[in-house]
Amino acid sequence: MNVFYIKGAAEGLNVLPEEESKHCVKVLRMTEGERFCVTDGVGNLYDAELVEAFPKRATVNLTNKRPGYDHWGFKLEIAIAPTKLNERTEWFLEKATEIGIDRVRLFTSYHSERRAANVERFQKVMVAAMKQSIKSRLPRIDGLISFDQLVKQPFEGQKFIAWIDDNVKDCLCDLYHKGENVLVLIGPEGDFSPEEVALAKENGFVPCSLGDARLRTETAAMVACHTIQLINQMK
Amino acid sequence: MNVFYIKGAAEGLNVLPEEESKHCVKVLRMTEGERFCVTDGVGNLYDAELVEAFPKRATVNLTNKRPGYDHWGFKLEIAIAPTKLNERTEWFLEKATEIGIDRVRLFTSYHSERRAANVERFQKVMVAAMKQSIKSRLPRIDGLISFDQLVKQPFEGQKFIAWIDDNVKDCLCDLYHKGENVLVLIGPEGDFSPEEVALAKENGFVPCSLGDARLRTETAAMVACHTIQLINQMK
Repeated sequence: MNVFYIKGAAEGLNVLPEEESKHCVKVLRMTEGERFCVTDGVGNLYDAELVEAFPKRATVNLTNKRPGYDHWGFKLEIAIAPTKLNERTEWFLEKATEIGIDRVRLFTSYHSERRAANVERFQKVMVAAMKQSIKSRLPRIDGLISFDQLVKQPFEGQKFIAWIDDNVKDCLCDLYHKGENVLVLIGPEGDFSPEEVALAKENGFVPCSLGDARLRTETAAMVACHTIQLINQMK
Repeated sequence: MNVFYIKGAAEGLNVLPEEESKHCVKVLRMTEGERFCVTDGVGNLYDAELVEAFPKRATVNLTNKRPGYDHWGFKLEIAIAPTKLNERTEWFLEKATEIGIDRVRLFTSYHSERRAANVERFQKVMVAAMKQSIKSRLPRIDGLISFDQLVKQPFEGQKFIAWIDDNVKDCLCDLYHKGENVLVLIGPEGDFSPEEVALAKENGFVPCSLGDARLRTETAAMVACHTIQLINQMK
């Protein structure tokens, strides 16, 4: 099923954004009267009918507003440092959006390989993944901030920090309490410095392991995301 | 830490395969006397010292043979149809190797987008991931077979089939028994045909869900792999 994204969508007539119009009319060659699905990115799906097939501003009629299936009763946030290879961060954003995440916080740290992030590009990856997995909510992604700022940001819920340390034995899957809001900090390529780990602890972050396997940064972030979703799905 | 792969490694003098020699001597510019780690791909790690830095056939001295940490007491196998875009299958192979998997079975099915697979290339991806995650075991990957052949292959353990079907409510995470061998069939792009699902059931495969989220084929395969590893890690 084709899904399009209209920010601020409402029942009745709506105009598809230029890129969505192009994809609908030029790429998919849809014609007036064709039906598809629209997400507003804030929790709702609509039945849509193409009314005017203009390649730059197509008009659609939206009906049957309904909440999407992607409403879990907790907040799931992951903080990650952009990887040296952008495609690895983008891959994480795609997979996390598919699996289900509320917010991604980007940070730079002492050992960060990359100190700039194209958040607009990252958001496009998440929009595509939201549409592909027929989700009704677009995860939020924040611009880069320093690790010091990050750990001092307020968060109501369980806070964890994961990095490679054989002395940390407790697994996120055993520490996390089902149903609770959670924020997990993932170690960057080159990992956290001892000072950063100490600062995170001072600010209420609990050290956790993601299991025995040694994981790449983007894999660790995805594993943390799936761990939380799975625990909340288990009977 | 640098890890190299020597098939059939043993304590004492060993020759690095040509590609590994090149990487060690040409790319990393290692010189005689330098130390690193070697995996034999069948469960053991060794301390290694570079004895002769020949760029095509470097010689290393292996000591302290020890089992790797990646020994879980069950068999984890995933069957997947190669994706239209090779990079998505390769991504799954990399992540599954990092997270931990024993064997990948490739198949073609009614809706398969791709009917050929470069298993040698796939294996290279898994070797790189094994080295990167400092694993001692190289997962096995089989060449393409038909879905009919696949479901008739013998397997001692729990057998599941996952595809997109709102009527299948039971989650793999609730059906799987911790510690048991498991084989999970993942629906291809375009999904299984009703006849294929029926044939799998006839051959003892139990339908399972991977949760509410609508996942791409390679994401579903990775999620199934991590679900099994996580359940076996949980206290």
